Amino acid sequence: MKVQVQPVKAKVQVQPVGYVEALRPHAEDDYWGGEEACITLTDEIEPDALQGLIHFSHAEVLFLMHQVAPSKIVTGARHPRNNDSWPAVGIFAQRGKNRPNRIGSTICRVVRVEGRKLFVAELDAIDGTPVLDIKPVMVEFLPRQEVRQPAWSHELMREYWLPKE
Amino acid sequence: MKVQVQPVKAKVQVQPVGYVEALRPHAEDDYWGGEEACITLTDEIEPDALQGLIHFSHAEVLFLMHQVAPSKIVTGARHPRNNDSWPAVGIFAQRGKNRPNRIGSTICRVVRVEGRKLFVAELDAIDGTPVLDIKPVMVEFLPRQEVRQPAWSHELMREYWLPKE
Repeated sequence: MKVQVQPVKAKVQVQPVGYVEALRPHAEDDYWGGEEACITLTDEIEPDALQGLIHFSHAEVLFLMHQVAPSKIVTGARHPRNNDSWPAVGIFAQRGKNRPNRIGSTICRVVRVEGRKLFVAELDAIDGTPVLDIKPVMVEFLPRQEVRQPAWSHELMREYWLPKE
Repeated sequence: MKVQVQPVKAKVQVQPVGYVEALRPHAEDDYWGGEEACITLTDEIEPDALQGLIHFSHAEVLFLMHQVAPSKIVTGARHPRNNDSWPAVGIFAQRGKNRPNRIGSTICRVVRVEGRKLFVAELDAIDGTPVLDIKPVMVEFLPRQEVRQPAWSHELMREYWLPKE
């Protein structure tokens, strides 16, 4: 493998392809089960960009967690949710929102498509969230081997997908 | 749900958190099975950002498909891989690289971590690829219902994860 010298400080511009309309105005940790949201594509994307997506049960949505203040971004390790009973782990070993580039990635259920609007269930994003990409979920891109993860991560997720009421 | 007026043209800057060293210098469609790659974090990320990731079997890597010329980006529908025997579908109903924002998202196997270096298997990114995020894979963030997808997508993926030789 050759060693590459890379421009470390290179920045890249991305542009929202849509915005989320959702019930929650601010970030919340848990109880996202069944919650519906709508993604409306911007005028710069053609409406047929969603054509055929309804034949997939799930879509992966990449979004910008825009309410995270840049000063709150963690570039090293911390306790997930600042909970001391879980081990301090690197920001790339947890899925918390205070991460470099503030990009969220969530697999949600495709509910319906109406022109430029995609209705999904269980997108854990707040109202006004800029969407960076939408990808169809294919089983071939899911893990092809058994998934192992530490106990703390199961504990953290225990109430995540429970319904709110 | 309230209707939001959003700044459609708002752009967002992101900054690579690392770069990929890999065998392939240019994009290829298939035969990614078992291929190993190394992600080296930039100096702006602390080395303990990867701490604890080794306890996860899989990581989701978000990366910029930087060799895609902006003029080649599709904002509507097309035949996947420009193959007429598959239906024309929207760019958000396929995972091709010529997409708005050119962001790839792949679940790969965590092989080992050495300081600022993360070694992974089955990352379908080329040498020099800027990495935007690394997230641990938790079963709770995988589909929680049966995955449905159209036949063309299974055909397209048939040789994707086969080993190269």
